[in-house]
Amino acid sequence: MEVAQILCMNKGGGETSYTQNSSLQQKIISDSMPITEKAVDALISTDATSASPPQSIAIADLGCSSGRNALLLISDTINLLYAKCKRLGYPLPEVSVFLNDLFNNDFNSIFGSLPDFHRRLKDTNGDEVGRCFISGVPGSFYGRLFPKHSLNFVHSSSSLHWLSKVPEGLKGEDKIRMNKGKVYLSRTSPPSVLLAYAAQFRNDFSRFISSRSEEMVSGGRMVLSFMGRKSMDPTAAGTAHQWELLAEALTTLVSQGLVDAKKIESFNAPFYAPCMKEVRMEIEKEGSFDIDRFEEFDVEWDDSAERVNSGLKSPSRGQRVAKTIRAVVETMLESHFRFGGEIMDVLFERYGAIIEDYLSWNTIKSTNLVVSFVKK
Amino acid sequence: MEVAQILCMNKGGGETSYTQNSSLQQKIISDSMPITEKAVDALISTDATSASPPQSIAIADLGCSSGRNALLLISDTINLLYAKCKRLGYPLPEVSVFLNDLFNNDFNSIFGSLPDFHRRLKDTNGDEVGRCFISGVPGSFYGRLFPKHSLNFVHSSSSLHWLSKVPEGLKGEDKIRMNKGKVYLSRTSPPSVLLAYAAQFRNDFSRFISSRSEEMVSGGRMVLSFMGRKSMDPTAAGTAHQWELLAEALTTLVSQGLVDAKKIESFNAPFYAPCMKEVRMEIEKEGSFDIDRFEEFDVEWDDSAERVNSGLKSPSRGQRVAKTIRAVVETMLESHFRFGGEIMDVLFERYGAIIEDYLSWNTIKSTNLVVSFVKK
Repeated sequence: MEVAQILCMNKGGGETSYTQNSSLQQKIISDSMPITEKAVDALISTDATSASPPQSIAIADLGCSSGRNALLLISDTINLLYAKCKRLGYPLPEVSVFLNDLFNNDFNSIFGSLPDFHRRLKDTNGDEVGRCFISGVPGSFYGRLFPKHSLNFVHSSSSLHWLSKVPEGLKGEDKIRMNKGKVYLSRTSPPSVLLAYAAQFRNDFSRFISSRSEEMVSGGRMVLSFMGRKSMDPTAAGTAHQWELLAEALTTLVSQGLVDAKKIESFNAPFYAPCMKEVRMEIEKEGSFDIDRFEEFDVEWDDSAERVNSGLKSPSRGQRVAKTIRAVVETMLESHFRFGGEIMDVLFERYGAIIEDYLSWNTIKSTNLVVSFVKK
Repeated sequence: MEVAQILCMNKGGGETSYTQNSSLQQKIISDSMPITEKAVDALISTDATSASPPQSIAIADLGCSSGRNALLLISDTINLLYAKCKRLGYPLPEVSVFLNDLFNNDFNSIFGSLPDFHRRLKDTNGDEVGRCFISGVPGSFYGRLFPKHSLNFVHSSSSLHWLSKVPEGLKGEDKIRMNKGKVYLSRTSPPSVLLAYAAQFRNDFSRFISSRSEEMVSGGRMVLSFMGRKSMDPTAAGTAHQWELLAEALTTLVSQGLVDAKKIESFNAPFYAPCMKEVRMEIEKEGSFDIDRFEEFDVEWDDSAERVNSGLKSPSRGQRVAKTIRAVVETMLESHFRFGGEIMDVLFERYGAIIEDYLSWNTIKSTNLVVSFVKK
């Protein structure tokens, strides 16, 4: 199954929705902001030898999702652009914003919030705002999404760790048992599983880079931020504990007769957390981008998980982290396991308890890679 | 209330949905097709002295709605472009498609149908398809929606008869009784009401034309098709019988105590069916377009209303026409009258009966204006 059909943040505004459980992703956007700011700043050149101020700037946010994060980066970017133009005495450019996500993303809810977005833009900029055209572009960013040489700035946050599909090498009756009891790379995964995941990442990431290369103008900027790992070894301790613990939670459901063990054997997450070296290699191989900055930082999940809850009883730290993950993976699990809502609740209740236990002697954190590029 | 907040075709796929009741609008797209084809054909010049074949073409459909009509014009246009390029031995251009409608349009359902759309495009063109980038652009077409000089072809069907708002002159306590018992221009409407409607049309249409003028490239083409009238007199018999009969249906609900008479007095449809002369005058005043063709044709509503029905009993002609209208105006009526679903059913049951009666001695038809332009 293509990820394009099964990856979708939980819709709506309820307790398990992505909207209510996305402050981790918001924190990642904020933590990457210094690098983003520098890239946005460079879009408006102050070089005296360069051409006149830009009349129009086209921005794409790839994997924008919905909810309050969808327009966060965009409003920050536009405010930065306006501020710089005003400082330089330049006329404000027309800004085109392309919000991209998969076909089943809730674009209606983003579009519904646009009148408010435009109002806030005016509030922040004291009525001195330029024209800003916002559109939704559905489709997979692992292929072309925009016309040639049409983009000045590309941004993507918390999206590129999703592969376009479960690695080919893990499909088929004879292979599904290879990664038994696990749903992602783990200490017990055989080398063939490691190789299959790494190959799928290389294939996807190189298609991403070459597609953007065609779409971006020379001198254009791109900032990508996604989950990665510090160790060269993808199974190093603490690299993917969210999947380890999810596998554990699923396994306890087998003993309760709620899940068929075979269903777990045939599930492998279409996810990959690369190390810097793997990313750098693909960028250099493609050859049309210069890397301006490349950093890694840790995000503690417990710190960032939602602290506000509509219920009367405050959820445990484990439950909060479980909800953050549920908002992202529920649609995918539903599509594979065909759970009803009740079993899903049991699963994440159990997952929360396992995380809570884990947190008593450890932290759950992920490594985030942020890379800033210039199109040659 | 701005029309942008209350005009929305009935969502979903049920019996009263726009999807199930939009063959009238489909027929209008088909009837205008000869003019559209000629405009699309002109996008790819065969003039030996002109520049090389276009590498990219940008198309906008304004007021695309959702359901099966949303992509109808687009697929026809792309097939025509491909056919001409192949005939001339040109490489296929990259086509950007911008689907526009108001913020509350159901873009999710259009986006959900895109994988199928791309599949059909390949089926029709035997795998020889160019890149086609489809995006959704929410917002009112009575203002700027796109960057300067970015569009080659603009199309709009069955949308421009909707005003941006109820004419200013009809608001306020002292004025709402002016058009008593009517919901649109009628024989009994005083001259001030006629003038208010005509002024609102001129204001809206000129903003539409000047916005498109900024957005289109020189030599770009535009085809607009919308409800109009043949007579110079906007209250001439048969010009707006759908509104006359709706007012009649609403009035019968007053006697049943289901609707407050005052509510009808304060409702005026944000609609205007102009005559050719009014349209031509605004285009000439703006001055940046040449009119290539300007035609009017009649559409019989009964002919085009849906004949297929999911229920066991085949609906009468009157009921079919009523459903066609309900799919378009229900959201607007709901917003003003605050009907519950049951009263809405009673209203359209009654409306259908009134139309059925009217059809026994008359036809319900509308005049459609189609105008094709070239950007100077």
